[in-house]
Amino acid sequence: MSKPLITPRLDLLRALSRELVSPPPIWLMRQAGRYLPEYREIRRKAPDFLALCYSPDLAAEITLQPIRRFGLDAAILFSDILVVPDALGMKVTFREGEGPLLERLETARELTRLRVPVAVERLAPVYETVRRVKRELPENVALIGFAGAPWTVATYMIEGSGDREFVRAKTWAYGDAAAFAALIDILVETSIAHLAAQAEAGVDAVQVFDSWCGVLPDDDFDRWCIEPMQRIVAGVRAKAPGLPIIGFPRGAGLNLGRYVAATGVDAVSLDTTVPLAHAAELQRSVVVQGNLDPIALLAGGDVLGAHTRRIVKALGQGPFIFNLGHGVLPRTPPKHVGELVALVRAGR
Amino acid sequence: MSKPLITPRLDLLRALSRELVSPPPIWLMRQAGRYLPEYREIRRKAPDFLALCYSPDLAAEITLQPIRRFGLDAAILFSDILVVPDALGMKVTFREGEGPLLERLETARELTRLRVPVAVERLAPVYETVRRVKRELPENVALIGFAGAPWTVATYMIEGSGDREFVRAKTWAYGDAAAFAALIDILVETSIAHLAAQAEAGVDAVQVFDSWCGVLPDDDFDRWCIEPMQRIVAGVRAKAPGLPIIGFPRGAGLNLGRYVAATGVDAVSLDTTVPLAHAAELQRSVVVQGNLDPIALLAGGDVLGAHTRRIVKALGQGPFIFNLGHGVLPRTPPKHVGELVALVRAGR
Repeated sequence: MSKPLITPRLDLLRALSRELVSPPPIWLMRQAGRYLPEYREIRRKAPDFLALCYSPDLAAEITLQPIRRFGLDAAILFSDILVVPDALGMKVTFREGEGPLLERLETARELTRLRVPVAVERLAPVYETVRRVKRELPENVALIGFAGAPWTVATYMIEGSGDREFVRAKTWAYGDAAAFAALIDILVETSIAHLAAQAEAGVDAVQVFDSWCGVLPDDDFDRWCIEPMQRIVAGVRAKAPGLPIIGFPRGAGLNLGRYVAATGVDAVSLDTTVPLAHAAELQRSVVVQGNLDPIALLAGGDVLGAHTRRIVKALGQGPFIFNLGHGVLPRTPPKHVGELVALVRAGR
Repeated sequence: MSKPLITPRLDLLRALSRELVSPPPIWLMRQAGRYLPEYREIRRKAPDFLALCYSPDLAAEITLQPIRRFGLDAAILFSDILVVPDALGMKVTFREGEGPLLERLETARELTRLRVPVAVERLAPVYETVRRVKRELPENVALIGFAGAPWTVATYMIEGSGDREFVRAKTWAYGDAAAFAALIDILVETSIAHLAAQAEAGVDAVQVFDSWCGVLPDDDFDRWCIEPMQRIVAGVRAKAPGLPIIGFPRGAGLNLGRYVAATGVDAVSLDTTVPLAHAAELQRSVVVQGNLDPIALLAGGDVLGAHTRRIVKALGQGPFIFNLGHGVLPRTPPKHVGELVALVRAGR
């Protein structure tokens, strides 16, 4: 963890400003979570997941747990993308091992129920968590805030739970584009306010997760993924100038290049399926982050070594942040994370 | 359904040989299935799905049902990609509304249990179905046979059911590549024999479904998706010269171009997420098939009209077969399929 004194800025921020940082900074999506015994210990005492997100002491503690264990270059705020629909007044429940369950938006008329003006006020405990984490975080570790992208959050609000076909959400988006756009507008506005409030509380960068954009065809990808993200980038930059923005359009596939060019994100987080040669091409225009298969981390050993070296070799010569292509899986042995950090820091 | 007498060949085969056919031929993945009341009627009397696949009379009847209703340009054999593991000696069960359940391959040692030499003999009823369908099919309608691609079939054999993370299959592929390659070799060999036997029985073309290739990163996509498909294409061409081969690497994303170039398929079936501008580029080197969102078909009306016209406009000027980007959803109203056929035949 020792850093030369001539490095005045956080490695993560140096990489996000297109500096070549070698070895690259590393953090992992879901680095705080169920695979850590100290996290499960807290969950045993506080089983209500959303209450945990709104408890600054506990949420700060969970955010810091993987930093203490592994000395990663960034912490990511312990929270959830569904605090936004919760703050808008939709009932959100997390069921053990099953994924979230939301009260569903059935019709466009129900949009008037959403408490847009006060949503961010209700998220005050989240910003308090940011302040506490910042006070306790080692000075060489960055703090990343986040929000879900509008399309992804909208799918949860309309489906209620994780229908993998997204029949309701797509039927609404395709069939009543004006009403769907009104919902997206609410989510754009609330996301900007939520991200700007995290910045004001002290996060060093933010990531916007579009976990389900990969199911949208063609024009609909542009309309429901790219355009809202353009507005979020512009809105956050207006309220929090200089805050780096990482986009994660998971599964964007052949839409990835358009997403990067059109949204103007500072960095793009790549899912596991993005070929490394393509990722290296992208580095010419944007900082890339990614994209180790979480199953290579779960497997550990030679598999972890081979997959990690392949990525560092392909991307380590450009602006790069090491990460997974998706979140840490719950069954991952914590010591594999330690081994991964050592592998990346060894630089080869 | 009337065709000019000067057209000596099936429209589907003309399109597959790179002729511009206007309006384009149309068939739909899962065009025979649960959305049709006449299919559900048969299933009520014959609830064992695999037994149905091995009953030439009933399987032929199901294959013909959508042709009678909608006058599509091709029938696709009613069967399943899991008849191959079944024929290899793995127990396969289909659970109502839940997806298949397979006896799992736990270790590489168990590969010796697979009955490779006799597998295709056990699929004789499938080839009898082909012969019966061919006898009854209108002469302007093609018959398509199919198989699952080795990676996709291997995931079912190793996972036992549909784990969306593919932890076991990937752990095996990444961690014991030699043993996994032995399984893939068995599936390549059996798939070639199965496809060639369908050709001998009379199918006009075949499609190879790689439904889960979209989860493989980089080199692993090449090794477990592209290379086995290269060998299937070569093997089928050696045994059934001139038989057109359609590849369906669902979710291939940024690996799609490499798949098309390296496998040498005659046509590529595109999933819903492939942007139409990219699909039009691909038409320069390969026949494309696709890629209407099944949810647009489920929605019907203006949504179906707009999505269909967008695709026909973008791809109708090159070698093209109209299809969905994935299978017909069970809740789809049958009359929407009739409307889709009329829309495509209207040519705009």
